[in-house]
Amino acid sequence: MGFEFTHQRRVEFAETDMAGIVHFANFFRWMECAEHAFLRSLGHSVHKSQGGHSTGWPRLKVSCDYSKPLRFEENVEVVLSVAEVRTRSVRYVFTIRRSVDGEVVARGETVAVHAQLDSTEGRLAAAPIPENLRAQLAERVGDAPPQP
Amino acid sequence: MGFEFTHQRRVEFAETDMAGIVHFANFFRWMECAEHAFLRSLGHSVHKSQGGHSTGWPRLKVSCDYSKPLRFEENVEVVLSVAEVRTRSVRYVFTIRRSVDGEVVARGETVAVHAQLDSTEGRLAAAPIPENLRAQLAERVGDAPPQP
Amino acid sequence: MGFEFTHQRRVEFAETDMAGIVHFANFFRWMECAEHAFLRSLGHSVHKSQGGHSTGWPRLKVSCDYSKPLRFEENVEVVLSVAEVRTRSVRYVFTIRRSVDGEVVARGETVAVHAQLDSTEGRLAAAPIPENLRAQLAERVGDAPPQP
Amino acid sequence: MGFEFTHQRRVEFAETDMAGIVHFANFFRWMECAEHAFLRSLGHSVHKSQGGHSTGWPRLKVSCDYSKPLRFEENVEVVLSVAEVRTRSVRYVFTIRRSVDGEVVARGETVAVHAQLDSTEGRLAAAPIPENLRAQLAERVGDAPPQP
Repeated sequence: MGFEFTHQRRVEFAETDMAGIVHFANFFRWMECAEHAFLRSLGHSVHKSQGGHSTGWPRLKVSCDYSKPLRFEENVEVVLSVAEVRTRSVRYVFTIRRSVDGEVVARGETVAVHAQLDSTEGRLAAAPIPENLRAQLAERVGDAPPQP
Repeated sequence: MGFEFTHQRRVEFAETDMAGIVHFANFFRWMECAEHAFLRSLGHSVHKSQGGHSTGWPRLKVSCDYSKPLRFEENVEVVLSVAEVRTRSVRYVFTIRRSVDGEVVARGETVAVHAQLDSTEGRLAAAPIPENLRAQLAERVGDAPPQP
Repeated sequence: MGFEFTHQRRVEFAETDMAGIVHFANFFRWMECAEHAFLRSLGHSVHKSQGGHSTGWPRLKVSCDYSKPLRFEENVEVVLSVAEVRTRSVRYVFTIRRSVDGEVVARGETVAVHAQLDSTEGRLAAAPIPENLRAQLAERVGDAPPQP
Repeated sequence: MGFEFTHQRRVEFAETDMAGIVHFANFFRWMECAEHAFLRSLGHSVHKSQGGHSTGWPRLKVSCDYSKPLRFEENVEVVLSVAEVRTRSVRYVFTIRRSVDGEVVARGETVAVHAQLDSTEGRLAAAPIPENLRAQLAERVGDAPPQP
């Protein structure tokens, strides 16, 4: 199986749309929250600032496949796996399950780039992932669940 | 009557909730957009950055009274009036109307503070509104529409 | 002092804006989440559907006063009190505190109307709060914290 | 080249995050808005309700590749092409450009299913796209721009 990190939440009213289900774009916010909680669990801050410079994790590529609708107040598990670690980027895959019965409602993928932001110039540039974080990520690369 | 600035938009799908109407919190985003469009119309940038410092307009106080529901695809007018100008803050009042028949669906109010953000320290501090902007705002203070 | 219900959360990345702080409109989503968690804690469903009809709690009036900025990853407590119960509506007041030091960052208020939605016609109409829920709410009306 | 439909917008403050750029999940809201504006341009309503039943376009699969950051107040063009039309679904591809210089900032894709929602039961089921709409869509299928 390999490593999995689980982030839990409950569907909020403002996350639904007039079709009575969770608006699809919110799944991307949830995947990002799972990723940030995972980085915190490794002891790393997600967004570090120092003297006008900061580092963060802009997305290079994201996707999501939806298989079941989710409704208000349902409990959800966003399960993260580390699929690939490169010098400047990480690829995560996510399985989103309804907590009550474990049914998969969506599967997603994110490629996040480690980047340095120069706030004076307003420029983002890819930067190597710090060595100890990269080692922690690499240890957790596993047999990712089949992707859409 | 006095000065009015009108910002137009159409209700988006993602702005609705499972009750089939616009989620109430979105009205605050619309009022902010109207305020920013108004500042641009006066030739002022809303958020200015210079050497690690920036200025912006954080909210001190906001409110909204809702009288009618709004639905997907309806066209809306967000009408801004300048109610009061002080050294470091502005009070705006808003009337939100359905475009098709002019019916008022909500009335809101915002007190925005002119602030300086020190991004190194991450501190916000109220700062005097630049003199020429304050003059432009003051000229537009009017008999505000009755507030809720 | 009286009754208080506390809802906890952590600031998410998507809730921040380019000023580096939580975007003000998100506080309204948090107050709504606290209200819904409170209703669930009393054993009542927030949004009930039955045969094309549903009941919910549209907002009549909301407000928020902001005193301190909130940043990414900070833990927050949204503390709800029941300020007033009427036949068809409830007034809640909220204190939003930074968990780490209890500092108040915002105070808000919501008047929510109990309403029936006819989904065929798409009409919302105020409806009396069910008797047993109204009794539960009334028991919890307290000396609300001073409002802005 | 083939058919293209262009939806224009300006980046709003609430769409930015603490990295100073548009939060990536908002691109999915923009692609959905472009799709809805396109359907309206063909004379079709996006979400039709009749006697407790409604039809809509839930997403089966979406993706986005990001190449450049976008900032507050920038004008954007979301350019939609119809890539494929099937009995119950449509695949759209999107190119998102900065208006000022035409630079591509992102490319995305959406597979939307035509579905019937039974609001009494709360069930969504794929349903054939109405014949005349399918014909209109099929006429516009083109040499889609290269996808990520």
